Amino acid sequence: MEIIEQLNWRYATKAMNGQQIPQEKIDRILEAARLAPSSNGLQPFEIIVISNQALKEKIRPAAFDQPQITGCSHLLVFAAWDGYTPERIDAFIAHTAAKRGGDPERLERQRQSLMNNFGRMDQDRGYAHAARQAYLSLGVTIVAAAAEGVDGTPMEGFDPERLDAILGLREKGLRSAVIIALGYRDTEKDWLVNLTKVRKDKAQFVTELN
Amino acid sequence: MEIIEQLNWRYATKAMNGQQIPQEKIDRILEAARLAPSSNGLQPFEIIVISNQALKEKIRPAAFDQPQITGCSHLLVFAAWDGYTPERIDAFIAHTAAKRGGDPERLERQRQSLMNNFGRMDQDRGYAHAARQAYLSLGVTIVAAAAEGVDGTPMEGFDPERLDAILGLREKGLRSAVIIALGYRDTEKDWLVNLTKVRKDKAQFVTELN
Repeated sequence: MEIIEQLNWRYATKAMNGQQIPQEKIDRILEAARLAPSSNGLQPFEIIVISNQALKEKIRPAAFDQPQITGCSHLLVFAAWDGYTPERIDAFIAHTAAKRGGDPERLERQRQSLMNNFGRMDQDRGYAHAARQAYLSLGVTIVAAAAEGVDGTPMEGFDPERLDAILGLREKGLRSAVIIALGYRDTEKDWLVNLTKVRKDKAQFVTELN
Repeated sequence: MEIIEQLNWRYATKAMNGQQIPQEKIDRILEAARLAPSSNGLQPFEIIVISNQALKEKIRPAAFDQPQITGCSHLLVFAAWDGYTPERIDAFIAHTAAKRGGDPERLERQRQSLMNNFGRMDQDRGYAHAARQAYLSLGVTIVAAAAEGVDGTPMEGFDPERLDAILGLREKGLRSAVIIALGYRDTEKDWLVNLTKVRKDKAQFVTELN
């Protein structure tokens, strides 16, 4: 299966060469991220796509000065909802009705169910839940990038509060959950490029109950 | 790109027909899940793969009696570490040394860094972090299943404590974070199969800062 070759090809590139990714590849990678499933279909996150070099340079100190931030072509910030609110649930139901149509009673039952499950969730729990959905989409994004021959370095090493401030995320009810630098490996400068990929052996990772 | 077609093809199947997935497909899907990246490469989760029908029937009441639990071919439980411990970090470093070799001083620096970042994290934060890594791998798993023509229904609708008890996870330092039912859609019985997929429009989902 191609996906396994692609996952073996990719690695968390530590040095990128600054080469730009063609827009059509970025578009396809983002389309895959958009199609990723999420809990109840709520998609409680957005993606900020940064190709502006000055902005990347501003972000780099908030990410422990890691060189991928400026060496990448596009920096994707997965910004999760800071919590679930009745307004967000209502907007989701209105969007569902517009896209799918359907029985108003069924939509109302769906709305009530979401309100019961998420509408009263405290903000911290809501954000934690939303961030997980962003990580699921990040997994899809990583595969999509590799399928395009694009390197992707997922990164948690940044200061979320500083990044939120730079991008003005909190005002929008968003919080940066995780980022990924997309670009092309600099094989001469990357200390990681030739090291063996380390993963748990299957026996440590999988238990089959037949 | 194939992946977009595959993501459009898949949906959260609500009724499965009981058909068995060939083992080689399951093996490739699990291999993709295993190759997914994780924070610092720690892979702080395992996957329990359940094809035993009696066990699926035992689990179903702990998952709000959802029919995919018993109608699926294989139920995958993503079981995340209940926290980071020095022992787990040491085992990871020993595994890395065995797989990759390398300079003992570098390995010791890596160990120290992990101890500083994760070794003192309280259990709840540790579990929350581990669960996110499991979700990333779930995203990869969903793509891999679709690439094999296998339906996958990711599910959060279960009682983690009951599922942990059934599978004996807590004793192993694991907690069920999320599950996915893998199988084949029952197109006659599934109310969702013909409904339009609803996703945010790109303009609601992506902000490009060029």
